[in-house]
Amino acid sequence: MPGAPTGPDSETGRPALRWRPWPLTYSSAMSDSPASRRPNRAPTGRPQLDSLLDDLRAADAELGERVVDRRPVYDGRYLALEVDRVVRTDGSESVRDVVVHPGAVVVAALDSDRRLLLVTQYRVPSGGAMLELPAGTLDTHDGVVEDPLVAAHRELEEETGYRAGSMERIGGFWSAPGFSTEYLTLYLATDLRPADENRLSPDQDENLRLSRLPWRDAVAAVEGGVIEDAKSVAGILLLGRRLEAVGPRT
Amino acid sequence: MPGAPTGPDSETGRPALRWRPWPLTYSSAMSDSPASRRPNRAPTGRPQLDSLLDDLRAADAELGERVVDRRPVYDGRYLALEVDRVVRTDGSESVRDVVVHPGAVVVAALDSDRRLLLVTQYRVPSGGAMLELPAGTLDTHDGVVEDPLVAAHRELEEETGYRAGSMERIGGFWSAPGFSTEYLTLYLATDLRPADENRLSPDQDENLRLSRLPWRDAVAAVEGGVIEDAKSVAGILLLGRRLEAVGPRT
Repeated sequence: MPGAPTGPDSETGRPALRWRPWPLTYSSAMSDSPASRRPNRAPTGRPQLDSLLDDLRAADAELGERVVDRRPVYDGRYLALEVDRVVRTDGSESVRDVVVHPGAVVVAALDSDRRLLLVTQYRVPSGGAMLELPAGTLDTHDGVVEDPLVAAHRELEEETGYRAGSMERIGGFWSAPGFSTEYLTLYLATDLRPADENRLSPDQDENLRLSRLPWRDAVAAVEGGVIEDAKSVAGILLLGRRLEAVGPRT
Repeated sequence: MPGAPTGPDSETGRPALRWRPWPLTYSSAMSDSPASRRPNRAPTGRPQLDSLLDDLRAADAELGERVVDRRPVYDGRYLALEVDRVVRTDGSESVRDVVVHPGAVVVAALDSDRRLLLVTQYRVPSGGAMLELPAGTLDTHDGVVEDPLVAAHRELEEETGYRAGSMERIGGFWSAPGFSTEYLTLYLATDLRPADENRLSPDQDENLRLSRLPWRDAVAAVEGGVIEDAKSVAGILLLGRRLEAVGPRT
């Protein structure tokens, strides 16, 4: 299959290099590009961080890679694979394999005893069960991607059986920006109460176990290598810094 | 393409459910499964963490998904896509899209002034330049995957022009265990010196800028959302906890 142009250019037989509006929208069943849902690099009001943001904007212009062709290779249940041909500012070309993913949410849910809700799930790619923060992929309906806040409430209830009175965005990151468009939004869920009898259930192909750990023990489990899922490592350590800054309530 | 069996079972025309040794090796150009390179869940000597490890082993048995068919869909430069059919312990079946990746390293390199070496790189999947720790994919030659320690030295020199007198493994995590086999090993590099005239250069398709940040400023950049690459978020916060535990040398 590699080398056989399956994109629009296969109609013309011409070399595939063709300029299109930039950034191109990925051709999977999504109305907007994952990058367009990225939070703006808004000024933080902190001079040192804002200077780093200025540097990143300058790097966009200097290092930017313009996508000139996007060839769909596979369209799966919630991820797709596309091969992008890019041209750099110096005119050189390269090829990038891109896993197109609608994005996801990860939820740090703290109960009234400041214990963190964790789920254990078997992961085929890692070949083992893993201890993780509740998380899930954004739903896509008719090409429209779910709002991350809605997804956070949904995933928390599906995976843990709890609803949150408060759901606050406390961060976000790209899971593997070298090859995947997955952006994860991190939420802090508090004011938890059990869902009633109308509880949303896990997806049919999810098999989860719920547990609770005092948040300091969760941080220790990250440092000890017992929690080794990047989104959970990042989420728990970000939460830990936040709770430590607040002071020793627990 | 979906639905058309392209694996070995297309030879027989029989339904593809067929038991094979487990775990199956991914069919891309790798001699061993990424999961086989995962560090063992060795006892930590800390009762609370060891009890979590016991729980994970029990969950392996209870929640484990047995891969009964693995269909290659795409084989790219350094990643492949395969569709796995799995059977759970209750006999139910499901399908998983798996991005097969050889694994990678990420390097937290501290200079003698305790500044962290960072690289800025344009990332097509995120549609922008990102500030990250030096990192890179493990090389694969004749189906043999590079030792992560060797890769850490190589990537540090390629991406920053520095060599490390000390390279210590301080952690590791799966970037996206729901859909990718990428395991990242995290190293702390110290005793840095500029590489001589025989310096390894970045890959031809990499265009990088080097910068330095005092490690506390790097932590602030993570908390402020300026660094938003998961491996760098996790690596910088893990390093931060380690340096804070050592005490206020800087």
